[in-house]
Amino acid sequence: MRPTLALVGATGAVGTVMREIISGRADVYGEIRLVASARSAGKVLQVRGEDVVVQALTPEVFEGVDIAIFDVPDEVSAEWVPLAASKGAIVIDKSGTFRMDPQVPLVVPEVNPGDAADRPRGIISTPNCTTLSMIVALGALHETYGLRELVVASYQAVSGAGVAGPARLYDEIEALAGDRTIGSSAGDVRKALQNRLEGESPFQAPIAFNVIPFAGSLKQDGWASEELKLRNESRKILGISDLKVSATCVRVPVVTTHSLAVHATFEREITVADARRVLDAAPTVVVMDDPAHDVFPMPADVVGTDPTYVGRIRQALDFPNTLDLFVCGDNLRKGAALNAAEIAELVIRTEFQGV
Amino acid sequence: MRPTLALVGATGAVGTVMREIISGRADVYGEIRLVASARSAGKVLQVRGEDVVVQALTPEVFEGVDIAIFDVPDEVSAEWVPLAASKGAIVIDKSGTFRMDPQVPLVVPEVNPGDAADRPRGIISTPNCTTLSMIVALGALHETYGLRELVVASYQAVSGAGVAGPARLYDEIEALAGDRTIGSSAGDVRKALQNRLEGESPFQAPIAFNVIPFAGSLKQDGWASEELKLRNESRKILGISDLKVSATCVRVPVVTTHSLAVHATFEREITVADARRVLDAAPTVVVMDDPAHDVFPMPADVVGTDPTYVGRIRQALDFPNTLDLFVCGDNLRKGAALNAAEIAELVIRTEFQGV
Repeated sequence: MRPTLALVGATGAVGTVMREIISGRADVYGEIRLVASARSAGKVLQVRGEDVVVQALTPEVFEGVDIAIFDVPDEVSAEWVPLAASKGAIVIDKSGTFRMDPQVPLVVPEVNPGDAADRPRGIISTPNCTTLSMIVALGALHETYGLRELVVASYQAVSGAGVAGPARLYDEIEALAGDRTIGSSAGDVRKALQNRLEGESPFQAPIAFNVIPFAGSLKQDGWASEELKLRNESRKILGISDLKVSATCVRVPVVTTHSLAVHATFEREITVADARRVLDAAPTVVVMDDPAHDVFPMPADVVGTDPTYVGRIRQALDFPNTLDLFVCGDNLRKGAALNAAEIAELVIRTEFQGV
Repeated sequence: MRPTLALVGATGAVGTVMREIISGRADVYGEIRLVASARSAGKVLQVRGEDVVVQALTPEVFEGVDIAIFDVPDEVSAEWVPLAASKGAIVIDKSGTFRMDPQVPLVVPEVNPGDAADRPRGIISTPNCTTLSMIVALGALHETYGLRELVVASYQAVSGAGVAGPARLYDEIEALAGDRTIGSSAGDVRKALQNRLEGESPFQAPIAFNVIPFAGSLKQDGWASEELKLRNESRKILGISDLKVSATCVRVPVVTTHSLAVHATFEREITVADARRVLDAAPTVVVMDDPAHDVFPMPADVVGTDPTYVGRIRQALDFPNTLDLFVCGDNLRKGAALNAAEIAELVIRTEFQGV
């Protein structure tokens, strides 16, 4: 019998992509329940070409559920994920709540699939979108060459902030388009948006014609939560407890697809040819690296697709065993919905007999 | 007597800012000659509130000139800079042609003013805009703590590509504004621009709703010229021949102001408080670092101003003697025109008696 799936947070930015992805894998699940806040209950959404009525998040909704995929805010996960697990569901949680819990595996199927089976709390976490946008490529290189250090700068898309992110970017672009002096004197973008645009932004500053060097919330010693997640999650997924990581996370006016400039140091000698060979052999990684013909990974070409794209592969000139790379991944697909779907399929493949 | 100045390349993006800057320093120069290609000769431009007729670039235009500031393409500098020097002018050259020439000093007045006096060819070079956007802050830290390693990722503005850069970004924004699905599937931005926009772009790919991980031209082993300039120029300006540098240069949809995520390792122990104290004391550096109140350097606030702005100052968690920073500088001002003007003033102050 095919497993019953509950999709909790079915109406959000990631939930929408999740329904699309699951619709493309029509034979995996039996019943699919769409679950959301009481506000969205009763709404009709499509999945696998069928209309499904959204149910409110209640304990009863998890009766008979085999797998529950949660994409809800941290505090909602904190309350409801353990409850769903207590009802017998294997829970795959996209929030930050359980990622660093030693009793919860943090899984990327290409990198550490074995970890999914050891889940004392019945919960499997899926990483932050920024970590996910690079970790498959780095995991492949790590396996052969032993990753030791990472220095990362991100170029993060606005959809990482939820549906309000793209809405705000489109609003700002519309408000500023046609003004061919905008962005040429201090504060002119801020002033124009104050005059021309109503409503709150999910961002700390204008995002059109600007970059914002902060993502997430402020943690100790000036670090942003996104920067610490990238460090701590990379360590846990790769199983390198002393991996050295420094990251600076920056929001850019791109709708979807996170990009990362990565400076990666390995235990063993590694050449550009070595890296290409390993990355070419990695099933979900695409090498896009021919700068002489303007071929490198970019959001405009990556958005809406599944792989991790790697380009600008260069041997560091002054650092031994070190490569500089540019990596792109769709933050809503591999960075969110796709990884959760793949964890579910991994569990089904290995644990659901006769499926 | 006040020195006679020739401004060669007076009509370009940097030339326009240069005329503004020199107009704000009305008492420095005697005669000012504006020089450009034959195409622009005869045009009337304003400097110091006066109309000045642009002269064509000829050998005669340098007769009696004390200081010539060149902002022209590399190949034009290669031909005309030595000629102007041979006529007795002290030449300050913005091109890449002479920067790494051991007989030409590469000068940032806040960092290595003494180098300007030793110029066997009569030429002083001014650095690339990307190097200049960070080097004053790093120079200040280096003086006390001894810089050893730099890992840099850039967020470079379109005006770094000349006047065609902003024109193209504005064109693309106008062509895409109002389309609230753009940037959500692979190639949609490319296709929309092909359909809606005529003319060549100075960039390799769409720049609106995108980032392009390449700047400059392709050099050996996959490195971009901008990345090598940042390495080699930093070494020369700071006088650290073995400074370790890795850079990834990325173009972003920002009109003016380059931003850089910098991971800097020093010889001596350095704390965030140390860095703040040094940077606060550096006359042309502004520390903008209060993320709890959304205070960090951003192009929207920096553009059109002179200082180097530093924020997001963090002690690296896993790397000894290392700071992570975010730095912004207006690439047309300190990154280009302002530094050239300041070199000229440095030379005038130290060498022109009685001025």
